[in-house]
Amino acid sequence: MPNYNYKVRLHSIRAFAFDVDGVMTDGTIISMPDGELVRIFNSKDGFALRMCSMKGYPVAIITGGTSDGIVSRFTGLGVDKADIYQKSRDKRPDFMDFCDRHGLRPGEVAYAGDDIPDIPVLRIAGLSVAPADAVPEVKDICDYVSLFPGGKGLARDLIEQVLKVRGDWTLDTEVYSKLF
Amino acid sequence: MPNYNYKVRLHSIRAFAFDVDGVMTDGTIISMPDGELVRIFNSKDGFALRMCSMKGYPVAIITGGTSDGIVSRFTGLGVDKADIYQKSRDKRPDFMDFCDRHGLRPGEVAYAGDDIPDIPVLRIAGLSVAPADAVPEVKDICDYVSLFPGGKGLARDLIEQVLKVRGDWTLDTEVYSKLF
Amino acid sequence: MPNYNYKVRLHSIRAFAFDVDGVMTDGTIISMPDGELVRIFNSKDGFALRMCSMKGYPVAIITGGTSDGIVSRFTGLGVDKADIYQKSRDKRPDFMDFCDRHGLRPGEVAYAGDDIPDIPVLRIAGLSVAPADAVPEVKDICDYVSLFPGGKGLARDLIEQVLKVRGDWTLDTEVYSKLF
Amino acid sequence: MPNYNYKVRLHSIRAFAFDVDGVMTDGTIISMPDGELVRIFNSKDGFALRMCSMKGYPVAIITGGTSDGIVSRFTGLGVDKADIYQKSRDKRPDFMDFCDRHGLRPGEVAYAGDDIPDIPVLRIAGLSVAPADAVPEVKDICDYVSLFPGGKGLARDLIEQVLKVRGDWTLDTEVYSKLF
Repeated sequence: MPNYNYKVRLHSIRAFAFDVDGVMTDGTIISMPDGELVRIFNSKDGFALRMCSMKGYPVAIITGGTSDGIVSRFTGLGVDKADIYQKSRDKRPDFMDFCDRHGLRPGEVAYAGDDIPDIPVLRIAGLSVAPADAVPEVKDICDYVSLFPGGKGLARDLIEQVLKVRGDWTLDTEVYSKLF
Repeated sequence: MPNYNYKVRLHSIRAFAFDVDGVMTDGTIISMPDGELVRIFNSKDGFALRMCSMKGYPVAIITGGTSDGIVSRFTGLGVDKADIYQKSRDKRPDFMDFCDRHGLRPGEVAYAGDDIPDIPVLRIAGLSVAPADAVPEVKDICDYVSLFPGGKGLARDLIEQVLKVRGDWTLDTEVYSKLF
Repeated sequence: MPNYNYKVRLHSIRAFAFDVDGVMTDGTIISMPDGELVRIFNSKDGFALRMCSMKGYPVAIITGGTSDGIVSRFTGLGVDKADIYQKSRDKRPDFMDFCDRHGLRPGEVAYAGDDIPDIPVLRIAGLSVAPADAVPEVKDICDYVSLFPGGKGLARDLIEQVLKVRGDWTLDTEVYSKLF
Repeated sequence: MPNYNYKVRLHSIRAFAFDVDGVMTDGTIISMPDGELVRIFNSKDGFALRMCSMKGYPVAIITGGTSDGIVSRFTGLGVDKADIYQKSRDKRPDFMDFCDRHGLRPGEVAYAGDDIPDIPVLRIAGLSVAPADAVPEVKDICDYVSLFPGGKGLARDLIEQVLKVRGDWTLDTEVYSKLF
C-alpha cells in the first residue's frame, strides 16, 4: 500500500464505481436451481448509496457477473441503470465509458475492488480502495485498505468519508425522509 | 452514550418498536431475481416477540423497506398488521401514530434502531437502544448499546430485560405451550 | 451445568431427539415473500444423521416451527417422517410419544435444545445437551454444553460422541458408500 | 498431518478434484420448500476455477449431494459437465474415472475434501488438502491443511499455489478479459 495519506485524495472525488462480488457482497453467491446466481447485500451500504444519489454523486457498478437481482438492488437505491455494467470482461473500458458519459476524469472517481480483474481500474482511479479481505495483489496497489470487509460496510465507509470531507454527509431529518 | 444507568428506564416501558434492517436482521438483504428483497431473521428474537404478544405488550415494526416476507414474519409472531409500518420515509410520525393508537406516551415505548434514519425516533423514545454494530451516530445518543449485534439476539436482549423487571418473563411450561 | 461427568451417560443412549432452530440451524430463518420460512442446515451434521439411520438409532425432530423444507431435509437424511414433530406447542408429550413408539425410556434418549421451550424435555432426557450459544436458562440445566454452536456441528458432536463409546462410529469405506 | 513439506508436490499437479459441501461451501445447505437443496459458493474460488479452465487444468467435482445449482455453478465457471460427479456413493471409483478419462495418474491430481467420505480419495491423490474446518480424521491424513475454511477461499488457495509454482498464474489483463 502506498505510504502517502489517502485522505488528501478524498476532496477531489466526485463519483464512485464499485465491483460487486467481494465488495458489495462478502463474496458469497447463492446458486439457485434454475441457474440464477443470487447475491446478498448490506443495508448500511444501501443507505450510503441513497445519499449519493440524493446529493448528485454518480455511481457505477462494474461486475463480471450478471443477474436481475443486481440490477433491481442498485436501481432501487437510485443508481442509473445505464451505469450498471454487467458481464464486464475488461473493466477499464467500462470505467472509462462511465467517466466519459458523466464528464468525469478518472482521477475524480473512487473505485473499490477486491480481486485481480479490478486491478486495471484501480491503477487509474482517483482513489483506489480495497476491502479488508481483498486478495494481496489488490491490497498492495490500493490507496486505502478499509477495515471493513466486502459486504459488511466497505461501501458505506468509502462514501461516508468522501461526503464528509466535501460537506455532503448530513444528519438532517428532513433530508433523510426523501432518501427512500 | 449517556452516563446514567439505563436500567431505571426499564420499569416504565409498556411497548416496543423496532427498525428491521440491522436490528431484526444483521443488515444483509438477499436480492432475488424478481426484485424482491428477502430478509433473514432470528429464532431467539422470535421467541421474545411471541412472549410480548402473549403478555399484551404492543410491538411496532417501523422500516424504510418493504417486502411480503417482513409482514408474514412478524404477523406470524403475533404482531398486529396495523403496527407494521413499511416504506417509512420519516419514522417519527409513524412512531407517534403507533403511540396514539395504543394510548401510549413516547416515554413508555422502547425503540431499537441502528442507522441515521432512526435518530429522530431514538431521541423521543422512553428507552433508546442500539445493537452492538450500529453506526457511531446512533450509539452516541442511545441509552443502551447492547452487546448483541442486529439479527443475533438484540431484540431478545431488550425484551427480556424489560419483561424481567416487570415480572412478565416466565419459565412456566403451561404458558409456553400457548406461545406458538 | 451439573458438575458430574456427562460422559458416563453416553453409554446408555440409544436414540436422539433434536430441536431445529438454534440447534440444527444457527437460529437464522429466511422469510420468503410467500410466507414460507426457510432454514439453513449443515453438511457435517447431515453426515452424522445418516450414520444414525444406518446404525439403527431412532432420531426425532421436535420443533415449534413448520415448513416443507424441514421435512424434506431430515427425511432425506433417513429420519422417519413419523418422528418429525412440527408445530410442537408442548414438547414433552411429543418427546414421550417418540419414546413410546420406539419402546425407549426417556433416560435412553439424548435431547439437544437451545431455548426455553426445550427445558421440559431437557429435564427428563437421558442426556441433555446445549449448543454453545444456547440461552443461559438452558445451559444452566444441561448435562453437556457443546463447544459447537447451533447449526455449526452441534448435532455431529453429540452423535459422534455417543456412537464412538458404543462402537458404532466407523471409518469403513464400504459402510460409507451405503450412507447416501 | 505428514511432516514433510507439501510444497514439493505442487510441481507435479496437473489437475484438481473437489468435494462440494464444506469445501466449495462452508457446509451450509439451504433447504427449500420444494425439497431442493441450495448451496452458497464463493467468488474468489470462482475466479481461480476460471483460471484453471483457461489454462487447461481439468477440474472434477465429486459430491454425495445433487442439485441443479451445483451443475450450473461449475459449468458456468468452465468445468466440463462430464467431470461433475453427483450422488457419488463411493468417491474413489469416480475419482479414478476422472483420471482415466483425462489420461492422468492419481499422483498428478490434487483433491480437497473435508469429511470422512473423502478419505479414500485423499489417500491416493497426488496432493491431499483439507480446509481449516475439516473433521480431525481428514486433517490427520492430509498433506496440506489450509488456513482457509471451506467456502471462504480454500479452492482459491490451492489452485493459486499450484498455478504459481507452475508459472500459470498470471496478472495479465488481456488474459483476464477472456476469463469470463
